[in-house]
Amino acid sequence: MNRKKIGIFDSGLGGLTVMKAIAQVLPNEDIVYLGDTARLPYGTKSPETIIRYSIENTHFLIEQGIKALVVACHTACAFALETLQQNFDFPIVGVIQPMVDFLQKNYDKKRVAILGTRGTITSGIYQQNLSSIDLIPIQCQLLVHLAEEGYVDHPSTRLVLEEYLAPLQQHPVDAIVLGCTHFPVLRTEIAKVVNSKTAILDPAIYCAKSLLSLLQNRHLLNEKTDSPASVFFVSEEAEKFQSLAPLFLGRSVDHVKLS
Amino acid sequence: MNRKKIGIFDSGLGGLTVMKAIAQVLPNEDIVYLGDTARLPYGTKSPETIIRYSIENTHFLIEQGIKALVVACHTACAFALETLQQNFDFPIVGVIQPMVDFLQKNYDKKRVAILGTRGTITSGIYQQNLSSIDLIPIQCQLLVHLAEEGYVDHPSTRLVLEEYLAPLQQHPVDAIVLGCTHFPVLRTEIAKVVNSKTAILDPAIYCAKSLLSLLQNRHLLNEKTDSPASVFFVSEEAEKFQSLAPLFLGRSVDHVKLS
Repeated sequence: MNRKKIGIFDSGLGGLTVMKAIAQVLPNEDIVYLGDTARLPYGTKSPETIIRYSIENTHFLIEQGIKALVVACHTACAFALETLQQNFDFPIVGVIQPMVDFLQKNYDKKRVAILGTRGTITSGIYQQNLSSIDLIPIQCQLLVHLAEEGYVDHPSTRLVLEEYLAPLQQHPVDAIVLGCTHFPVLRTEIAKVVNSKTAILDPAIYCAKSLLSLLQNRHLLNEKTDSPASVFFVSEEAEKFQSLAPLFLGRSVDHVKLS
Repeated sequence: MNRKKIGIFDSGLGGLTVMKAIAQVLPNEDIVYLGDTARLPYGTKSPETIIRYSIENTHFLIEQGIKALVVACHTACAFALETLQQNFDFPIVGVIQPMVDFLQKNYDKKRVAILGTRGTITSGIYQQNLSSIDLIPIQCQLLVHLAEEGYVDHPSTRLVLEEYLAPLQQHPVDAIVLGCTHFPVLRTEIAKVVNSKTAILDPAIYCAKSLLSLLQNRHLLNEKTDSPASVFFVSEEAEKFQSLAPLFLGRSVDHVKLS
């Protein structure tokens, strides 16, 4: 039997933090991951470009045999998720809507900071969907590059973080949303510079739970399997991907193929 | 009379440091600049991808009416300059060869550090062409992003620089080559962390002089003009380009069009 997989794409390594959550919530599923490293970063590109890349990535994953798709990139979700859902007939989940639903339910009238790339923040997607929450959107473009280079507990990352999060010093927030898939690897450093009562929320968890519900409803979940398989593709720099993957995925990665 | 221009392309803002040198050395020339910001950065992409992008950029500049081309991106020079010179019949200069010629003449048997992107350094282009110089190649990928975000005299840039340049602390070099067009804007910060006797060399100057000779030899230089014109194109984020351009070009930029 040729079991169909869950397809995940991101612009690079960041989506591996989403894959990690999905593998925890859906441990019996085969996963195929595509990191579009040749065209990274997505966070600074136009909506039209992002939509084109997202459609191309989806077609590539369809060729690998998928039954569902996870758009594990906030910028791609902000700009391309709707187009993808209109054009393809399998379940497609992103990282933003499940997070938005959780915030609406649990942080109504509260104060929440959204950290994201320039693309995600200027898209206004969180702002538009969370009008009853006191939102503090913060563009943190450099954090993507610091994480991609493995500068996780580096003093320069700390300085950049202190600058980005300075607006939260005088007016603490109830929660911080890690609104870019790279940011969960900086969670410990972020925790050091914010109020200890602030919840740090990773949208990956809510995305994985949303995917679980969707697959359950459509009877697409795998039976218990002995050895769910993972396949990794990148459009560039397979070696760098392989060496930094453990930081994002929490485990090492055997083979990384070029897409 | 439709005067032909000098075409310059780079992956983003960095090439403006080269344009600045060219405008100083060739003050009567019209210039058309293309920043391929939609596909930035080039420094982490494969040779095949860089060649494809470089050919596309050249075709775009030909449509703008050029008499000569400057490849103002070290990674594109390392991978694509030869292909471009073989495929187009107008003068084409890059930023690497003129620098290599100068180093061969003035730094033979001396110790020189080359700061570059991952692409430039791993291409080995400086190493192959300067075998009689004691070269210290240093990959400084993060400096590109710090410069692109305008983090020029920021303490985190200082920390990153100190780390990248640590190998030069114990064994000072005679010269440092700013082997990426973004790095000249960090020249002051770089000077602070290296020995005061170390020369800091910007390849843009040698590139501009090389272009001057080529145009003189082919009788392609403009007569004295009252108002040489500059035109700027980018493939994405025209506003960001316009706001950061003065840092790289040393003057403000009026109109930035999308390519």
